Amino acid sequence: MLVPSHIQTLKPYIAGKTIEEVVHEYNPPRISKLASNENRLGCSPKAREAVNRSMDQIMNYPDPASKLLRERLAKQFGIKTGNVITGSGSEGVMALITRTFFLDTDEALTADATFIGFVVLANSRGIKLRRVPLTSGYRFDLEAMAAAIRPETKVIYLANPNNPTGTYFSRKEFEAFHKKVPEHVLIIMDEAYFEYARNVADYPDSMKYRYDNVITLRTFSKAYGLAGLRIGYGFAHEDIISNLMKVKLPFEPSTPAQAAALAALDDTDFLDRSVAMVHSGRDRLYDFLTSKGLNFVESVSNSVMAIFGDEPEAEAFTLAMLKKGVILRRLPAFGLPNCVRITIGTPDEMDHFEMACDDVLPV
Amino acid sequence: MLVPSHIQTLKPYIAGKTIEEVVHEYNPPRISKLASNENRLGCSPKAREAVNRSMDQIMNYPDPASKLLRERLAKQFGIKTGNVITGSGSEGVMALITRTFFLDTDEALTADATFIGFVVLANSRGIKLRRVPLTSGYRFDLEAMAAAIRPETKVIYLANPNNPTGTYFSRKEFEAFHKKVPEHVLIIMDEAYFEYARNVADYPDSMKYRYDNVITLRTFSKAYGLAGLRIGYGFAHEDIISNLMKVKLPFEPSTPAQAAALAALDDTDFLDRSVAMVHSGRDRLYDFLTSKGLNFVESVSNSVMAIFGDEPEAEAFTLAMLKKGVILRRLPAFGLPNCVRITIGTPDEMDHFEMACDDVLPV
Repeated sequence: MLVPSHIQTLKPYIAGKTIEEVVHEYNPPRISKLASNENRLGCSPKAREAVNRSMDQIMNYPDPASKLLRERLAKQFGIKTGNVITGSGSEGVMALITRTFFLDTDEALTADATFIGFVVLANSRGIKLRRVPLTSGYRFDLEAMAAAIRPETKVIYLANPNNPTGTYFSRKEFEAFHKKVPEHVLIIMDEAYFEYARNVADYPDSMKYRYDNVITLRTFSKAYGLAGLRIGYGFAHEDIISNLMKVKLPFEPSTPAQAAALAALDDTDFLDRSVAMVHSGRDRLYDFLTSKGLNFVESVSNSVMAIFGDEPEAEAFTLAMLKKGVILRRLPAFGLPNCVRITIGTPDEMDHFEMACDDVLPV
Repeated sequence: MLVPSHIQTLKPYIAGKTIEEVVHEYNPPRISKLASNENRLGCSPKAREAVNRSMDQIMNYPDPASKLLRERLAKQFGIKTGNVITGSGSEGVMALITRTFFLDTDEALTADATFIGFVVLANSRGIKLRRVPLTSGYRFDLEAMAAAIRPETKVIYLANPNNPTGTYFSRKEFEAFHKKVPEHVLIIMDEAYFEYARNVADYPDSMKYRYDNVITLRTFSKAYGLAGLRIGYGFAHEDIISNLMKVKLPFEPSTPAQAAALAALDDTDFLDRSVAMVHSGRDRLYDFLTSKGLNFVESVSNSVMAIFGDEPEAEAFTLAMLKKGVILRRLPAFGLPNCVRITIGTPDEMDHFEMACDDVLPV
């Protein structure tokens, strides 16, 4: 048989509605895309200029070693270039990890409601994936996860802050967890939303300490506003990185992506404005949701998860908002059918969100 | 153990010298990069404009379905969108194929001297890869390959034209070969250099016929001059494509890559000029190599392989040319230690090549 059974049984990826589809179906007077945790401010103009300049050499293959970018990241975070890898988004590095470390008999461990990318990667590798419920506060239950480790466990996937809940675990919690994880188990620490959380007092910025079996993933897709370019990076022990480098597609990431990332790192002003917009927009959203009597989970990320009484209520709300042009993300695929994720947008977009919500949910 | 043994024993990818390194080491008066089969004319200005426009939406994730590009490719080649997949270069699609189809016990089959990317992918998947020698004329030996198929054989990799030899097999040869390949074996037909070969009378443009177990790969990295952007595509039966789509990273390829590819397809003038430059430069190179008494293999691709008496001779020639600023590709990694691959450049670059060669190899 040409297609292995574990691939045949995979479900296809269902993308959210595009702006074009929303316009076509509902033709709302305006659209606010608050569904994909993107940076609604756009990207740094310096990144854009860098992409344009990089096109002078676009007929040439990219630098396979991402030399300039890896050196720049190493310098910024006080480590060595040999501790850094780049990829097509942090999901690209994650795909590389699954290609590098898994044998057929290995298992992976993660939480019930977290980033789906890792789940798809494990399933398509034919790896048994075991999942541990979140706490009642929608947080990673690190104690229960440590207890769930078995001899077959090869990789543990943690997201901090978690997506879609926006919650985080503390440094103290992680350190207690790490003590219980055998050395031959690789911990993926997905910090895609790091830039929004770094100011939280007990957030364990995993660059501040390093364990030999932890790989930290970060991305330019969120706070840097470069999701369309596909560039992310990872930090780990040089033995892990050197093995990943052997398996990596040599010409990943692309030349414009490498150039844009370098330029984006230099534009701290744009980054600061982006993060400040999210922080103030998040406070405003808390107040608004509270005024509407809606439940939500406190977030250290660029989105807030609203909790409805049941699935039909969450579905009706999302559809009513969509008709008003506000695109939100329902979460049945994350095992959270009664929850809706709201990305923090620009002040204008949050105006639109509130106006639409006032129509949809009159107090 | 964290790293599987088949990964630990992989050799790291060794990139060729960059232009910067050549300048630093030898400081030649000019540089001609004729080492990587890139399009020395650059890319279509329309592709560049499309990339710049795409940056308006770069904070958003790419279209996971590559809808516009897949529709455009389907229209151009008279097939359905469901028969097309896009990826980060044809190597990206190849990586996807290895992730989708292989089980641990499968084997792959290819030729001795062909594109190394597939070899690395099979090795990193821990798959046994069996290789069949080329003919004495440096061509794929399809008869010997058919005879080498075993029950464990799952994927056969063919490159047509082949890289680095520039040779091809004919439609008649392929059709005879295909009859001997069981239906449950997937044939990868890598046509990365298709645009240079399509005018050859008996070249089997594999879009002109379709078998259910053949996937054809093409790229924008060669004739379209977009190697730095990472975009390629594949054609196959819709069952193969739909399974690949399930395993594909959802946000591959990037937004600028999708936009540039669409624009590049529209600029047939640029493509025609690029191919014409290669065809006339190749004839000129044949004449020149003949005048120097050098052996070479006739090519239907954008490079010509010169054959030296032994490895030291090939090495000495390549190094002497490098010191003159002409970067060529030695081929020991392809099992061709006495051969050197010469990319066809612009007329100016071919002037440089000839002048350097006159100094290095006086008649």
